[in-house]
Amino acid sequence: SVNPDLASERQTASFSVEKLTAWLDGGVEHTRIRRAVVEAIESDPVFSRENQYFQSQNERYEAAVRKAVHLQKKMHELGWTENGPEYKYIYRALAGDVAFLLHRIFMRSILMLGSDKQVAKWIPLATQYQLIGSYAQTELGHGTYLQGLETTAVFDITTQEFILNTPKISAMKWWPGDMGRSATHTVVFAQLYVHGKCYGVHPFIVQIRSLQDHSLCPGITAGDIGPKMNFEHADNGFLMLQNVRVPRENMLNKFCEVQPDGTYVRWGSQKINYFTMTTVRISIISDEVIAPVMKACTIAIRYSVVRRQSKLKPGEQEAKILDYQTQQEKLLPQLAAAYAFHFINDYLQELFNRAYREMQRKNFETLPELHAFSSGFKALITQYCTSAVEICLRACGGHGYSLLSGLPSLYTKILASCIYEGENTVLLLQTARFLIKCFMAASAGQSVPPSVTYLAAVKPGKCPAKNKLDFLNPDIYTEAYQHMAARLIRSTAAKLQDLIQSGVKKHDAWNQCTVQLAQAAKAHCHYITVKNFAETVEKLKTQAGIQQIMKHLCDLFALHGIFSNAGVFLHDGYISGAQMDMVTASYLDLLPVIRKDAVPLVDAFDFTDKSLNSALGSYDGQVYQRLYEWAQKSPTNQQMSPAYERYLKPLLHNKLSKL
Amino acid sequence: SVNPDLASERQTASFSVEKLTAWLDGGVEHTRIRRAVVEAIESDPVFSRENQYFQSQNERYEAAVRKAVHLQKKMHELGWTENGPEYKYIYRALAGDVAFLLHRIFMRSILMLGSDKQVAKWIPLATQYQLIGSYAQTELGHGTYLQGLETTAVFDITTQEFILNTPKISAMKWWPGDMGRSATHTVVFAQLYVHGKCYGVHPFIVQIRSLQDHSLCPGITAGDIGPKMNFEHADNGFLMLQNVRVPRENMLNKFCEVQPDGTYVRWGSQKINYFTMTTVRISIISDEVIAPVMKACTIAIRYSVVRRQSKLKPGEQEAKILDYQTQQEKLLPQLAAAYAFHFINDYLQELFNRAYREMQRKNFETLPELHAFSSGFKALITQYCTSAVEICLRACGGHGYSLLSGLPSLYTKILASCIYEGENTVLLLQTARFLIKCFMAASAGQSVPPSVTYLAAVKPGKCPAKNKLDFLNPDIYTEAYQHMAARLIRSTAAKLQDLIQSGVKKHDAWNQCTVQLAQAAKAHCHYITVKNFAETVEKLKTQAGIQQIMKHLCDLFALHGIFSNAGVFLHDGYISGAQMDMVTASYLDLLPVIRKDAVPLVDAFDFTDKSLNSALGSYDGQVYQRLYEWAQKSPTNQQMSPAYERYLKPLLHNKLSKL
Repeated sequence: SVNPDLASERQTASFSVEKLTAWLDGGVEHTRIRRAVVEAIESDPVFSRENQYFQSQNERYEAAVRKAVHLQKKMHELGWTENGPEYKYIYRALAGDVAFLLHRIFMRSILMLGSDKQVAKWIPLATQYQLIGSYAQTELGHGTYLQGLETTAVFDITTQEFILNTPKISAMKWWPGDMGRSATHTVVFAQLYVHGKCYGVHPFIVQIRSLQDHSLCPGITAGDIGPKMNFEHADNGFLMLQNVRVPRENMLNKFCEVQPDGTYVRWGSQKINYFTMTTVRISIISDEVIAPVMKACTIAIRYSVVRRQSKLKPGEQEAKILDYQTQQEKLLPQLAAAYAFHFINDYLQELFNRAYREMQRKNFETLPELHAFSSGFKALITQYCTSAVEICLRACGGHGYSLLSGLPSLYTKILASCIYEGENTVLLLQTARFLIKCFMAASAGQSVPPSVTYLAAVKPGKCPAKNKLDFLNPDIYTEAYQHMAARLIRSTAAKLQDLIQSGVKKHDAWNQCTVQLAQAAKAHCHYITVKNFAETVEKLKTQAGIQQIMKHLCDLFALHGIFSNAGVFLHDGYISGAQMDMVTASYLDLLPVIRKDAVPLVDAFDFTDKSLNSALGSYDGQVYQRLYEWAQKSPTNQQMSPAYERYLKPLLHNKLSKL
Repeated sequence: SVNPDLASERQTASFSVEKLTAWLDGGVEHTRIRRAVVEAIESDPVFSRENQYFQSQNERYEAAVRKAVHLQKKMHELGWTENGPEYKYIYRALAGDVAFLLHRIFMRSILMLGSDKQVAKWIPLATQYQLIGSYAQTELGHGTYLQGLETTAVFDITTQEFILNTPKISAMKWWPGDMGRSATHTVVFAQLYVHGKCYGVHPFIVQIRSLQDHSLCPGITAGDIGPKMNFEHADNGFLMLQNVRVPRENMLNKFCEVQPDGTYVRWGSQKINYFTMTTVRISIISDEVIAPVMKACTIAIRYSVVRRQSKLKPGEQEAKILDYQTQQEKLLPQLAAAYAFHFINDYLQELFNRAYREMQRKNFETLPELHAFSSGFKALITQYCTSAVEICLRACGGHGYSLLSGLPSLYTKILASCIYEGENTVLLLQTARFLIKCFMAASAGQSVPPSVTYLAAVKPGKCPAKNKLDFLNPDIYTEAYQHMAARLIRSTAAKLQDLIQSGVKKHDAWNQCTVQLAQAAKAHCHYITVKNFAETVEKLKTQAGIQQIMKHLCDLFALHGIFSNAGVFLHDGYISGAQMDMVTASYLDLLPVIRKDAVPLVDAFDFTDKSLNSALGSYDGQVYQRLYEWAQKSPTNQQMSPAYERYLKPLLHNKLSKL
């Protein structure tokens, strides 16, 4: 039975939830396939996550390996393949906690960086799991700055081998997933030396554990790096190499090669080495960032119509907390953001597919734009969504803080996305570098990618809005964002030039502008997100009910951004104080409008109770029963603690002085 | 041996670290006592936290009980008493993870709300630990809104007892610490009924577990609420009551009483019932909020001078990450905030002591101001500091995400402070209500507390700053904050009145203003914090070296606030766009100045390595060695996982299809 406070929310939906779900999925057929995958996974007890919040790091790891192995069997049975339509839904359905994700990245690096011969040798072995792969790039002392990696690979011409070494502690590989306990092989990134000359970082396939008994290979020290904020299931590992020899053929050599005589040959851009990271950066956004924020919204919004607290009107019963403006203002902008980023993800996928096709033809021209955008959006989206999940958690008060709400684990996991695959500040500065370059080029009349032509085209001016309703016009707010982003980039470019012209060295000048550069890069991505949301709504013309509510969400996303970053819009007077009051009024007016559809809007994400794994977020809203039943299953309630006999009893039964 | 990158930071301190420490402690004598307490605690292996990051919830609970019992013994041995000068340092030295904290609150409620007779009966028992107390207020369905509590206590005139009941699941007590597994007694807050009439919420002492064998008393259902984001050591509990009878004398009756014939008599304000929460709210700020943020700054700043990444100048070695402007801009404002809140804590303590003295004389006049301020500052400080710790964590990249850095547990713990002892939004709105009332009163010429007279006194105007140096004048920025806070309160009061005059009902109008009211309340507390910091620096005249660096931190705290909340300062043109550029310039200029003293500034907090419990934050900065050594001790590295035999071996040794 559904909690009546929740049931009533579904009766007044202004649109068809089922149609919205299908549209989000990209069509009813996709919805059907997704649900079939979810059903197959969730009906299988091996994939259950019911005890997850009670498990230790060791138990989580074991369950993850078991699931990964079982998944192979299951896929075989059900005829699911890596290229089939089901594949992309599997991971979402498993909701994390599965091993061998790095095995996929291991394979992807070989496919991307390996010669045809290497692909032919390693990919079948990996596909058949006759080895388990990992990806050893990050070191204890070196993360984002790949050129600084210290692991060495020296070519020994006499044996035709590379000798790999970890010359000091900071060079120890640290963090690679699946490496602490599972992997038999890994791709090690190391500085290549031939005849004493360093050729920079290159990837080498290295076996680290015996295929017979899984013992560490000679010269290898490896293990688990210990507890983290989340990812208990993943055996993130460390790896030290002492004179480990691999044959010449183990350097991935699609784009460069060390020939038997030690001659070094290169065919492509060295930047291609980093391309695996770019692909990972984009591929994580949907599963690791947007899905969690959708889940957090589902949990927090359902809970907020079940939880009642204090009285809005004297004499009435306590009010649903979602009826408070402050609660709406916490949650609804996050809901709007979840939609905004779902749409920008499509945009990024398209950008990526285009670039990938070009790259297959060895055309690397689009790489800088792809790199800049994937970096900037990765930073913007992960940061925004991490904060969104935290807001959802805090909006649920004490119950949000219980692991059983599902929110803490969503938060601690999404937080990592701000750090891995490129630390966000570093990424934003890479985007900024691209934007400044484009701004300079465009200002000098040179051609730049269409996405950034606006940088040199925007002129000073004032926002034309006359009343609060004008701010519900996408042209008005999109232009405000465009103006603001262009101004930030322009003014930072000017500061940079001023500093250089006043004699400050280029690198110092750059450093002195980085706070503002990062802000400008974020502003650009924020602008594109708003613009893309507005265009998506525009294209939706035929589906009236859905278009209406999407328009409201788009408005909310845009106005929330102006309200929360008022300074950058007010700064040059483009928006006046009086206009900012209109923005605020329109923004606050939207909250009760969207609040009416809040539950249908999260229902449309179509998460099952099992995938939410939350006592607060279930479809039926039986929050208190579920919390109580679940808490009783906690191992802490399974028997009396030995602490009673050992400590409490002596304390209570003796006078303190006798203890 | 100290890492030379860290050692060099200490050689150029612009002030005496030892003198700053003594000043922060309130004098050298306090420093001496604090260090003696820390030494006594940390040299005792029972109090070790070395394995904390590897322990399960059960292990953490047991260790916490063990420590609490051992502490009693230790205090007895060393002659430390609850009223002695050592007492306030014990908890800081233990750094959490100790049981029976609610026992203290149990005692405090009795001392506060109990009659002399009740104090004489219960306090000696509690002091001698012949019982273990808890404090059962929050319910599954009721937190902040105490009037909504559903637990009932019906007076039975025939037996002279109260009969306590949990009438439905949402009335179950939920969260009380020490109650899930340890407590024998608790103070239950319940709706008092006499002769069928409800007199509202009152506190009752209830025994829940046998003093003989610790089994649950008749009518009691209790247990642990399961895993949380942190506080694994605490047995937060649930409690259901079924016809549990307690004698008439068990209702705490300093301020009201049910007489034998059922007559209800009251002597004081009913609000006094909430006073325990006010005292707790203030008492947590120092230990639970400011100390953690100081630790996070210590860890992140020490790590940031040891970690090197990328090159600032071409051809040089990789730079310390603290030399990047973006890293300075992340960490140094948090450091400044730690100092700012340390000083505002003194201010709050003074306010509290004054009010407490009055209350002892049954004068409740100062209660509203104390309540409003303790609420607002609790909300501002916990929110600010939680975000500060998160920034520190993220600023350490991947290593910050490892539990071994110490940062995740600081974060997950401080986050709770935003929720417990009053959810922050609710608290801010209580402050706002007080401010609006004072503004109205002051505008009507009535007298208001000195702290809020400015509300009606501030006039429209412009900031007089002419260049960026003017923004290093405390009068300039303090006035900007004052102007901004007054404007937000004034304009929200105006909106509220407009709505009411246009026919919107009072409670609806209030709800429609709450987003802005919360913002206004925060602005007021922010203003007072800046003002108090500036006054503290002013008073420091005699200690030149320290005053200089404190002045820089005060400037940074203030300008960071303007830079990050630019919108509210620009809104009415009090600060112009050109002046905001000056603020930004002065703000960014301060970063490299304070960066020079960053390590000495965190050294002055005087945390030992054991109290930081962090591989990144140790005094010697041997970060990588410590991470590696510590990780090796992880239980995940103690033996080969059974997952190999069970899952990996069959996978690797068979073709997939045979699995």
